[in-house]
Amino acid sequence: MNENIKAEICALRENSSIAYLASVNAEGYPQMKAMLVFEQERSLKVHYFSTNTSSKRVDQFLKNPKASVYYCDSENFKGALFTGTIEVCRDRASRELLWTGDECLQYYPKGIDDEDYTVLKFTAETVNYYDGFGNTTLSADEL
Amino acid sequence: MNENIKAEICALRENSSIAYLASVNAEGYPQMKAMLVFEQERSLKVHYFSTNTSSKRVDQFLKNPKASVYYCDSENFKGALFTGTIEVCRDRASRELLWTGDECLQYYPKGIDDEDYTVLKFTAETVNYYDGFGNTTLSADEL
Repeated sequence: MNENIKAEICALRENSSIAYLASVNAEGYPQMKAMLVFEQERSLKVHYFSTNTSSKRVDQFLKNPKASVYYCDSENFKGALFTGTIEVCRDRASRELLWTGDECLQYYPKGIDDEDYTVLKFTAETVNYYDGFGNTTLSADEL
Repeated sequence: MNENIKAEICALRENSSIAYLASVNAEGYPQMKAMLVFEQERSLKVHYFSTNTSSKRVDQFLKNPKASVYYCDSENFKGALFTGTIEVCRDRASRELLWTGDECLQYYPKGIDDEDYTVLKFTAETVNYYDGFGNTTLSADEL
């Protein structure tokens, strides 16, 4: 049963070019933003995103790491909501993970060491998957 | 300037069949879900959604009304994030607002008074609009 759901979640993620990343701001309000998905083949437990160091999101995650990541196929009423925490990474190894080549220069013109390039490492604790047939929550250990 | 942004936000909302609604759960984690957009022509300040009374979201909003609503055109890198609060409405007038006829019976088979039918009334305090050219936050008074 869980293996079927895991396969559904993997397929949903692999078909997503966009994920939605949510944070909680200093006043306690949830915030969210569409993020480009650059990697879809690693574990379901850890998801990496790139963002501008100067963005509001980075500041929010430094103060409060609680986060969620949502992949959604709205036409087919399928969604996977991962809940967990974000680590703000600026080390070289993390930068290299998402740096795929010169196409990244459109976002970070100074290159891989651009001070405005930050990697967000999301680690899931649970995932809730739903489709027309139901709604299941798995723990990270089951991912 | 603000009138242009307001027109952009209206257009983004009018072209959206889906909005993303975020809450904060009892453990302080942000949560989100795709919601069908049933009304796009009312004020930018108040947005109504329908949901199942039994859903986790209703329980979260009764405990913590802080919310956000996000409309997104990911292909064109445009997004409008409304931040505000949710009121859980079960009165007849609210039910009638979103009840468009027999097509609603697929969600609430017992009709407009179905106990599993709840209306979520979101009232914005601010909206942040971004596109490729910039990022602007307006207060509700400017909407």
